[in-house]
Amino acid sequence: MVENDFDTALHEREGIEQPAQVNPYLQKRKRRELSVDEYVDGILRGDRVILSRAITLTESLNPEHQKMAQDVIERCLPHSGKSLRIGITGVPGVGKSTFIEAFGSHITSVGKKLAVLAIDPSSERSKGSILGDKTRMEQLSTDPNAFIRPSPSGLTLGGVARKTRETAILCEAAGFDVIIIETVGVGQSETVVKSMVDFFLLLMLAGAGDELQGIKRGIMEMADGLVINKADGDNVHPAELAKTRYQSALHLFPKNENGWSVPVATCSAIEHTSIDKVWEMITDFEQHTRSNGFFEKNRNEQNVKIFYDWIDFTIKNNFFNNPDVAKKIEELLPKVLEGNITPYQAGNAVVDEEKGC
Amino acid sequence: MVENDFDTALHEREGIEQPAQVNPYLQKRKRRELSVDEYVDGILRGDRVILSRAITLTESLNPEHQKMAQDVIERCLPHSGKSLRIGITGVPGVGKSTFIEAFGSHITSVGKKLAVLAIDPSSERSKGSILGDKTRMEQLSTDPNAFIRPSPSGLTLGGVARKTRETAILCEAAGFDVIIIETVGVGQSETVVKSMVDFFLLLMLAGAGDELQGIKRGIMEMADGLVINKADGDNVHPAELAKTRYQSALHLFPKNENGWSVPVATCSAIEHTSIDKVWEMITDFEQHTRSNGFFEKNRNEQNVKIFYDWIDFTIKNNFFNNPDVAKKIEELLPKVLEGNITPYQAGNAVVDEEKGC
Repeated sequence: MVENDFDTALHEREGIEQPAQVNPYLQKRKRRELSVDEYVDGILRGDRVILSRAITLTESLNPEHQKMAQDVIERCLPHSGKSLRIGITGVPGVGKSTFIEAFGSHITSVGKKLAVLAIDPSSERSKGSILGDKTRMEQLSTDPNAFIRPSPSGLTLGGVARKTRETAILCEAAGFDVIIIETVGVGQSETVVKSMVDFFLLLMLAGAGDELQGIKRGIMEMADGLVINKADGDNVHPAELAKTRYQSALHLFPKNENGWSVPVATCSAIEHTSIDKVWEMITDFEQHTRSNGFFEKNRNEQNVKIFYDWIDFTIKNNFFNNPDVAKKIEELLPKVLEGNITPYQAGNAVVDEEKGC
Repeated sequence: MVENDFDTALHEREGIEQPAQVNPYLQKRKRRELSVDEYVDGILRGDRVILSRAITLTESLNPEHQKMAQDVIERCLPHSGKSLRIGITGVPGVGKSTFIEAFGSHITSVGKKLAVLAIDPSSERSKGSILGDKTRMEQLSTDPNAFIRPSPSGLTLGGVARKTRETAILCEAAGFDVIIIETVGVGQSETVVKSMVDFFLLLMLAGAGDELQGIKRGIMEMADGLVINKADGDNVHPAELAKTRYQSALHLFPKNENGWSVPVATCSAIEHTSIDKVWEMITDFEQHTRSNGFFEKNRNEQNVKIFYDWIDFTIKNNFFNNPDVAKKIEELLPKVLEGNITPYQAGNAVVDEEKGC
């Protein structure tokens, strides 16, 4: 089910009573603000409308909303952490959306509730991909056990990453068992996704050029599993050959600390073949790393990164919300743009302004 | 001439007197520290040994060195800004090093002094590429009018970017006319390089696969010029075809605000053919944008980014150098790693610690 802003439609479908309304636009504008308690209660009982609104709240730039979102997240934290988090990456053309459609449907078919989030740093520039996100997984978006949330827009990669982490916490508190985090941008977001998932899956193609392989080398080192997609029709044999080749290549990498040998599988998302094998690969990994303690260890190490990121975000947020700072920036920015002051001098002047308080 | 740490060798070559020494290791360790005045004077008279040491100073993590480096940079700033800054990117396999060898040699042959810097976010993980930087441009590294400086290691992309900007300032103050900033990492550093150069050159290959083109689409939009390398031997005709194809593709992009139509050229770095055409393309661009004011406008807009980045860096630096903060982090980090406190709670506790002072 695709999360969307038109909560009324969803509420109707889920049989939730709607107040009488004349003008649906007015109705939407006047939507009553929820309290932190109402957000938390709604999320914990799995109300998707409230979950969606809470996610939107975390994405708000309004400082009051931010404060509130922080309270909601903090109260959801004790209920989070129970899902299996899967990162999925691959170059454009590898069939990521189609794969997530097929893979996601398999996950819900084995009785799991699935949330699909995306890290899309390109959304900073073009908003096109956002709309794309909402419609490109047609089958999954009508699955009542799936929840698809597009990447927030207008943020830097760091901002998108923070919001995606917070969204994952809310989804976990709402009872989702599996969270897929997909890289949508190219090349920039793999490290970020790797830092927030339990299993990092690299989708590949058979017969891609050498230059392309070069691009993927750094990413291949991060992968916990490789899947060669589009193993269908004439491509079955090349896919098998590629599998053997990647298996050999992986032998050249140093052994993982967690004792896991990175497997290579083939599948066809379009024909829905061997999709179950991919799920098996991941549950094997979970079993392996849970039993030797590396599952928990990885998460705790990821928490160190969150710790520093959170400090980073908070000190910047506090700084730029200081009215003296805002005033000084407003005063100096035109001078920087006109070349009347060096950006370093101007920056120092702004920092000194805050210290004075 | 490759910058290196063994200043003694360079000094000898440049006829600078060396103190008597018994143990060269001891000599290196005991190297007299220079004053800010000595750094600035040395840089302004174009002393490469002192330039190299100043760059090393900017890369130091020692707070005293950082303070000193900042003073040196600030005093060099009025003497900077006079070079032409060229960014060069392209996927692995496009022949970037060979191109920069040939292109750089052409630049010095027309009487310009050239500095080559690299942005390499991958140096965070593997140090391999650093050594590579020092040796892969053999011809240029022996050219007395060229100065090659590898990317600083052990920093995040933001850190590498800041250091590269500072290095460019020092190089400009030392009298370099052209600064090439090369992307070494893949996919992550293009935006950063674009934000610090006057002209952004995209190197391409003829006949690369469709997926590959997809990767480059976002980068193509940033380019001020496209050059198809390896237009030699059997590849001359495919390169010409690719040129036509890219020219058509570029027509689909919205026109640049600065009125510049992005040109496409072919060249062979190995055979040194049409390298002069690439230089002509860039000097044309400089003339065009200088005359319509967009050269200056672009630089001033880049300064706004530097302004914010500098504030960002300074507030973080001030924060983490606060002894109370350091102590609190030391106390909480093990708890985060053991999962005894959420990273958000721990982060908030650290931020509160600083506020208390």
